[in-house]
Amino acid sequence: MRPTTPNPSNPSPDPAPQLGPRLLALTARADAALARVLPAEQQQPLELHQAMRYAVLGGGKRLRPLLVYAAGHALGVDGEALDAPACAVELIHAYSLVHDDLPAMDDDALRRGRPTCHVVYGEAMAILAGDALQALAFEILAHDPHADAQRTLAMLRALGHACGAEGMAGGQALDLTAVGRRLTLAELEHMHACKTGALIRTSVRLGALAAGADAPTLAVLDRYAAAVGLAFQVRDDILDVEGESAVIGKTAGKDAAADKPTFPSIIGLEASRERLAELTRTALDAVASFGARGELLDELAHYAAERRH
Amino acid sequence: MRPTTPNPSNPSPDPAPQLGPRLLALTARADAALARVLPAEQQQPLELHQAMRYAVLGGGKRLRPLLVYAAGHALGVDGEALDAPACAVELIHAYSLVHDDLPAMDDDALRRGRPTCHVVYGEAMAILAGDALQALAFEILAHDPHADAQRTLAMLRALGHACGAEGMAGGQALDLTAVGRRLTLAELEHMHACKTGALIRTSVRLGALAAGADAPTLAVLDRYAAAVGLAFQVRDDILDVEGESAVIGKTAGKDAAADKPTFPSIIGLEASRERLAELTRTALDAVASFGARGELLDELAHYAAERRH
Repeated sequence: MRPTTPNPSNPSPDPAPQLGPRLLALTARADAALARVLPAEQQQPLELHQAMRYAVLGGGKRLRPLLVYAAGHALGVDGEALDAPACAVELIHAYSLVHDDLPAMDDDALRRGRPTCHVVYGEAMAILAGDALQALAFEILAHDPHADAQRTLAMLRALGHACGAEGMAGGQALDLTAVGRRLTLAELEHMHACKTGALIRTSVRLGALAAGADAPTLAVLDRYAAAVGLAFQVRDDILDVEGESAVIGKTAGKDAAADKPTFPSIIGLEASRERLAELTRTALDAVASFGARGELLDELAHYAAERRH
Repeated sequence: MRPTTPNPSNPSPDPAPQLGPRLLALTARADAALARVLPAEQQQPLELHQAMRYAVLGGGKRLRPLLVYAAGHALGVDGEALDAPACAVELIHAYSLVHDDLPAMDDDALRRGRPTCHVVYGEAMAILAGDALQALAFEILAHDPHADAQRTLAMLRALGHACGAEGMAGGQALDLTAVGRRLTLAELEHMHACKTGALIRTSVRLGALAAGADAPTLAVLDRYAAAVGLAFQVRDDILDVEGESAVIGKTAGKDAAADKPTFPSIIGLEASRERLAELTRTALDAVASFGARGELLDELAHYAAERRH
């Protein structure tokens, strides 16, 4: 079941990677924790709560929560101490998807194989659901009963930074202004480092902070996370060229149609596959010193690079 | 200069209330602190940063920061210890205005006498600017060097709750679903208690927490804040009927035109003025025990009820 290293010269015959039993169990753990922290559907205001739950539950790879759990595991911490940060990063991710899909943004009607939040609940409710999900992420992290106050504050600072103008929202703004423009590879990588990389790095960082990691350990894990974050995006761009909508759960060929800069459009498909393999090696090397305890991090690095959707 | 108690039977001849010199100085303090915490206009991504600064700076009553400073002052704390929470509540307020004004929400083109953020920067950038402002509010509060960790966490919890599904976003959702529907007075007050009341109460609470207030003091101040928050909204509804767009800085008669429930539409203009006077008395009574140290809170209670815009 363990995925193999990507083979850039002949990627198609590789079997689609499956998550191993431990990560599958952690996916279920994240789903259950998210279902608990989200407001109940039967509680007023009904539509807002339904839209929030719709945006978060029912699908999703849970890559970010899995990175929280995997980083904690590498440092000997498992379970409840990681649930609040795991939920927080996924709530942020889910809110960003809801807002990205809006007509004024990417105008996407399909996400995770289902109609997008604004298609089901209307634009106004989708904007509010996204806003409320962002607030909930900070609230549950600030309520975390398993961390000491200093650690929790460090996590909140990291999360705030990852979401803001120097992180996710900033990357999204760069993306908006990049449409129809020719970017260099460095500009494209910087845009993704903000847009998706910041939250992926923060996911690993929160897991490590929850486990009480020191600065050198945080730095090692950050090297891993930066590589995985970028690999995830390169894979996304490759899938947009190669994939089928039914498999990837969103509209294929969308980026090219929208004249968005992508790795294949700037450096070509073959070089994109090579870059992906190189990033995966960087990630695996970074966490090699964890030995067997780094197994979940290894598995996620492979998964990010080899996934089919 | 000190405003008088509102006179419901004959409100028009009252002079428009002016903020006294201390609150004016604190308004300038809040403006300066906000200009410092916002990302620089010359820094990438330029448009996002410009949209964020446009949304926050240049206008605004700064009622929420003033409530932070006034609550701190009542408990003997002034200055730097209050700047981070004062900025945080205003950033949240500004983000909520940007999102509320969007075409999919209230579709308003005028705010604080200027074109709204999406009119100037486009819808997509306005959505992102709002998102980034929310994140920045949590980030700067988590960075506050003047509070101890436990106090900061209590502030972050309060802010998260005020912004979310049981606070501002929830109130906004109730507002959306109320359009064209006949609300009871209790339903209208509950909607406003969430939509604007939660953040106003949290402003007072953050000032009090920064000053190390105990639970009974927090409860007293919360009675004040709940009354001021509702008074502010009653006044808003009255101004929408009576005011002129040029004075109130946004489109007058907008609520009635949109068939939104308001205090005048449910209980009439005269009863709305009486409710406003009653709420102001409740607020002043709540903080009477602070004596002279409560002067800024008194002044703000008058201001919320008597303002012309």
